[in-house]
Amino acid sequence: MAGFHVRSVLVTGSNRGIGLELIKHFIGKPNPPEVIFATCRDPEGAQAQELKKLASKHPNVMILQLEATDSASIKSAAKKAEARLGGTGLNLLINNAGVMLPSTLESATPEDMLSVYNTNIVGPLLVTQAFLPLLKKAAQGSNQKGMSCSKAAIVNISTVLGSIEKTPETFSFVPVVSYRCSKAALNMLTKCQSMGYKQDGILCTALHPGWVKTELGNFQPNVQADLTVDESVSGLMKVICDLSEKHHGILMSWEGNTLPW
Amino acid sequence: MAGFHVRSVLVTGSNRGIGLELIKHFIGKPNPPEVIFATCRDPEGAQAQELKKLASKHPNVMILQLEATDSASIKSAAKKAEARLGGTGLNLLINNAGVMLPSTLESATPEDMLSVYNTNIVGPLLVTQAFLPLLKKAAQGSNQKGMSCSKAAIVNISTVLGSIEKTPETFSFVPVVSYRCSKAALNMLTKCQSMGYKQDGILCTALHPGWVKTELGNFQPNVQADLTVDESVSGLMKVICDLSEKHHGILMSWEGNTLPW
Repeated sequence: MAGFHVRSVLVTGSNRGIGLELIKHFIGKPNPPEVIFATCRDPEGAQAQELKKLASKHPNVMILQLEATDSASIKSAAKKAEARLGGTGLNLLINNAGVMLPSTLESATPEDMLSVYNTNIVGPLLVTQAFLPLLKKAAQGSNQKGMSCSKAAIVNISTVLGSIEKTPETFSFVPVVSYRCSKAALNMLTKCQSMGYKQDGILCTALHPGWVKTELGNFQPNVQADLTVDESVSGLMKVICDLSEKHHGILMSWEGNTLPW
Repeated sequence: MAGFHVRSVLVTGSNRGIGLELIKHFIGKPNPPEVIFATCRDPEGAQAQELKKLASKHPNVMILQLEATDSASIKSAAKKAEARLGGTGLNLLINNAGVMLPSTLESATPEDMLSVYNTNIVGPLLVTQAFLPLLKKAAQGSNQKGMSCSKAAIVNISTVLGSIEKTPETFSFVPVVSYRCSKAALNMLTKCQSMGYKQDGILCTALHPGWVKTELGNFQPNVQADLTVDESVSGLMKVICDLSEKHHGILMSWEGNTLPW
């Protein structure tokens, strides 16, 4: 979309995998955002060096410490973001941070179930609560008709593995029970958000990034991830550009196809 | 179904509401089960008096202490059940125990989200893990063809409020975000169980009991629950009797209709 311009975006879990690639793609757009908030749990850690390097070269990238399961950390990040935005709102929040642990019907434990749920859905819930005033401000300050990511949007990075309907296609080789349950719940949260924030003009969509060659995608040695991170994120960026009220409250793949719940 | 006979059944959360009514309906069948395990968190508590009275009159009812979020409690209950069954298996496990708390997109907290998830899905996961050997024994010991609750089955009491597809119909007057997310996850767990236990011949189905006049159904003062507990459970009993492999891994209403995820 030629006229598509996101003025400000925030991506959680942006120090590696899909999160880091999203930051790179936003930087590389012909009309990059004026402010790119790249959040991660430990900006000083070894796993954030590539992100730090990027930020040092691109003054529109601001790294924020944000641990998605820690309310205080989220609120602190939201304050810093608000200050940086200087009175304008946040156009696009991408809840990308997530974890996947090996987990079968036999091996799943309460600790596994609860910690994965905490990161994969409670995190997005809390981050959205904290950044909602900035998203509302962006929606109110926009003169665009309809819904879009250049106006105000929440994109939750979900997965086809959270599709109950499609579970029979993959369960035998990727059971990941705790992950699947958390992502089905995240899909429900996305639908709830789409209902709750409709009146505010905030678009809410869940996206499946494909089966990607990242640490997450390759943790099961017997599963062949079939997409590079670049292929996946190229697709996601195209989908994000094209999102409109038609896609409010649905789950879509990186190829732009609607997936069943 | 005239020949339908469940030899043994276990119902969690059976001291009140739908759980207690299920126990009453099993007792009242023309051919009641030989063993009815009625589990609750606190069999000595004030809220278990009606159940205790029932058990004192019906020797086929055995009350078991079971706290669905406590592994030790579940394992202890499973040992007692195994002893009572005297070498036979368990035909039907009904994961009914659940909680619903007021919870909106604005008010939902990590504590709310995690405690509701723990009770509503981690509980059914752990209870199923513990009773699986007895369910497998029942399936192996049966000469019935196909799947049924009189052979071996897991019924998870879910809700239409866990249907992502149907959320727009009810979200404005019953947001219950933590409950909806936990039940969408329970629906996913049901699908995973249906995949994992298919080879064992164990039927797995999620049931929506309707909008029932129980403590759960009436907690929102502005919502009119429209079914009595007896009406709901009469429907559920009929559905349970009729369940077969056609209903493996799906969500059904107390009226026997398939509901979308």
